[in-house]
Amino acid sequence: MRARAAELDAADPLRSARDRFVLDDTVYLDGNSLGALPRSVPGRIADVVAEEWGRRRIRSWTESGWDTAPERIGDRLAPLLGAAPGQVVVGDSTSVNLFKLLVGAVRLAGDERDEILLDADTFPTDGYLAESAARLTGRRLRAVPAALIPAEAGPRTAVALVNHVDYRTGELRDLPGTTAALRAAGALSLWDLCHSAGALPVELDRHGVDFAVGCTYKYLNGGPGAPAFCYLAAAHLPRFDSPLPGWWGHREPFAMTGDYAPHATVRRARVGTPDVLSMLALEAALEVWDGVEIGTVRAKSLALTDFFLECVATLVPAGAVESLTPVEHAGRGSQVALRCAGAEGVMDRLVARGVVGDHRPPDVLRFGFTPLYTSFAETVRAAVTLAEVLAPDADR
Amino acid sequence: MRARAAELDAADPLRSARDRFVLDDTVYLDGNSLGALPRSVPGRIADVVAEEWGRRRIRSWTESGWDTAPERIGDRLAPLLGAAPGQVVVGDSTSVNLFKLLVGAVRLAGDERDEILLDADTFPTDGYLAESAARLTGRRLRAVPAALIPAEAGPRTAVALVNHVDYRTGELRDLPGTTAALRAAGALSLWDLCHSAGALPVELDRHGVDFAVGCTYKYLNGGPGAPAFCYLAAAHLPRFDSPLPGWWGHREPFAMTGDYAPHATVRRARVGTPDVLSMLALEAALEVWDGVEIGTVRAKSLALTDFFLECVATLVPAGAVESLTPVEHAGRGSQVALRCAGAEGVMDRLVARGVVGDHRPPDVLRFGFTPLYTSFAETVRAAVTLAEVLAPDADR
Repeated sequence: MRARAAELDAADPLRSARDRFVLDDTVYLDGNSLGALPRSVPGRIADVVAEEWGRRRIRSWTESGWDTAPERIGDRLAPLLGAAPGQVVVGDSTSVNLFKLLVGAVRLAGDERDEILLDADTFPTDGYLAESAARLTGRRLRAVPAALIPAEAGPRTAVALVNHVDYRTGELRDLPGTTAALRAAGALSLWDLCHSAGALPVELDRHGVDFAVGCTYKYLNGGPGAPAFCYLAAAHLPRFDSPLPGWWGHREPFAMTGDYAPHATVRRARVGTPDVLSMLALEAALEVWDGVEIGTVRAKSLALTDFFLECVATLVPAGAVESLTPVEHAGRGSQVALRCAGAEGVMDRLVARGVVGDHRPPDVLRFGFTPLYTSFAETVRAAVTLAEVLAPDADR
Repeated sequence: MRARAAELDAADPLRSARDRFVLDDTVYLDGNSLGALPRSVPGRIADVVAEEWGRRRIRSWTESGWDTAPERIGDRLAPLLGAAPGQVVVGDSTSVNLFKLLVGAVRLAGDERDEILLDADTFPTDGYLAESAARLTGRRLRAVPAALIPAEAGPRTAVALVNHVDYRTGELRDLPGTTAALRAAGALSLWDLCHSAGALPVELDRHGVDFAVGCTYKYLNGGPGAPAFCYLAAAHLPRFDSPLPGWWGHREPFAMTGDYAPHATVRRARVGTPDVLSMLALEAALEVWDGVEIGTVRAKSLALTDFFLECVATLVPAGAVESLTPVEHAGRGSQVALRCAGAEGVMDRLVARGVVGDHRPPDVLRFGFTPLYTSFAETVRAAVTLAEVLAPDADR
């Protein structure tokens, strides 16, 4: 398998992208939790701190482009999401953006649509914020499995919030089909792209998605707690009515008027003062995408996860793990989830041997594959190490 | 006046604090908009990026203390606000925090209290978010001048949102009296400390304030768009019910349960993943406060603004400017606001001559005094330059 890995690495069109990151001899398969550091970031951040904050100070809001960074970085992200310019803005956390867009979607849908549908296996924060949005807008929240949302959407459905990739199992949901079914029911779609943005093509515009949110610290490598993004389809912009109408979403923030008048553009989804240091670190981090096609990333992602599943099946003692990740490519994100007794302890031993993934309760080992920097050689090493840790005679 | 300035600088107990900042020969009087860069920040941020993110990666959430940074930094801020530990948490923007605390306060106040009082001269974003909170909770929003809030608060008042220092005029409001009057009316208080935190003693606990928010990028020098803070009086923590119940406010975020159960502590005011780079820049920036008493800061602030007003009265042509800043110390924050025809152009000319303040519509020049780094020599230079710019024969 090591020879196969060497061949696959030699033929990898993304091979050189690895040099754009700070890496060491750890096999880092946790980029689905926190992406590795791009080499473009440290120098840029040093300059932002010393020159833009330290020397230009207040002038940097205009002279260094701080004021327009959220939309500028949104437009830099847009091609990775399949979005035309002017529909993506960066800022706040995914949770805050979920609230903004859920309440905004409910308002757009109108009073006769009194139900919010929620992906029953959602990442928890989405459910918590959906509960809050439902409570504040007087809607009913109904959780149904993602696969059933097309059938469950009806004349009472205002919006459905669905995770594009399940954070636990790595299952990729049917975005085109679900979005189309929601539209046919007269309902709006809100997709959580945290585990797909930067890992696979999303094609928001092409599939007619209404709203989307996502974080930038996983496959987009923006840094710990980097600002999240939101996507508002152009058609909805004129009527989008945010529940968080902060001054930076105002048509003229520095007119300092008492009445809120939303900006004509996607800027109306902004709230308060953007966190410039984190935001400009993200902007620098996005340089790793220069010249990279998301389709190439997807092809390598599937090859990596195929290869990992094959290595695990070959090397790991039979019955020690069970894959929760769909075998079919159409249903797979960019991670492999293995159910395993004592997952937390197993992961600790993997980490001690230089293979970093993570675990999710109660019994899931997660291995994230970031095509820009993960090699096939690392993939086989991860499987070999897992086999060692799970061997009946392993030293625990 | 230059001789007086030299004497005052020589006797200044905060003289050496200036060395903790990166400064140049500009007279920077815009620290009430963006504080200057503390020398402690660049090295720390370089280390956070290269070592904590770049080398330790995901392990830093626990090993580098990222997970608890919002409460830890909150406790570092607390003494500057007169708050005992466990009541301040850092994160999100001021606008988002205003929404959290307004809705939380309305819920605490109960359904029979159907009115939110708003400082009529509020910084605009507070009004926008108060309008949104009122709309979503079915309350009435009523704007009244800050000085009338004690008289206007009644049995229907749930909460009053008041700016501690007026962003435009620099007027310091009566926090103790207003808070006591609200309490007497059975209403809650929510103070916006953006223009007072780090500039003067606030004494939240002593005066029985219920809730407060503030930014950290002005007198706290946390950097552009640094995370804001919120204060929740300990008595309210057990019942505080956030409208933004994100996973990081959950009792066990990594249990990943579908039901929201708020953390027992002030952590329940957290929402999503904290923006680590901006947050740790703020933490490093707070080192400038080591050994500094806020009372000393206040004394110097008043001496600086007294001196500036005196210099302006002496040097600037009669009638060219009118001070909007209260003469009485009890009513003054840490800025001087001068009404002046053509304020925007006047400020441009001041900046071109190395004196940086800002202007606010329609006709206000603002000069912020940051006692940690502003000297009396700079103060007289600012007044001299203003006099030059406003001289009848000045070259425009």
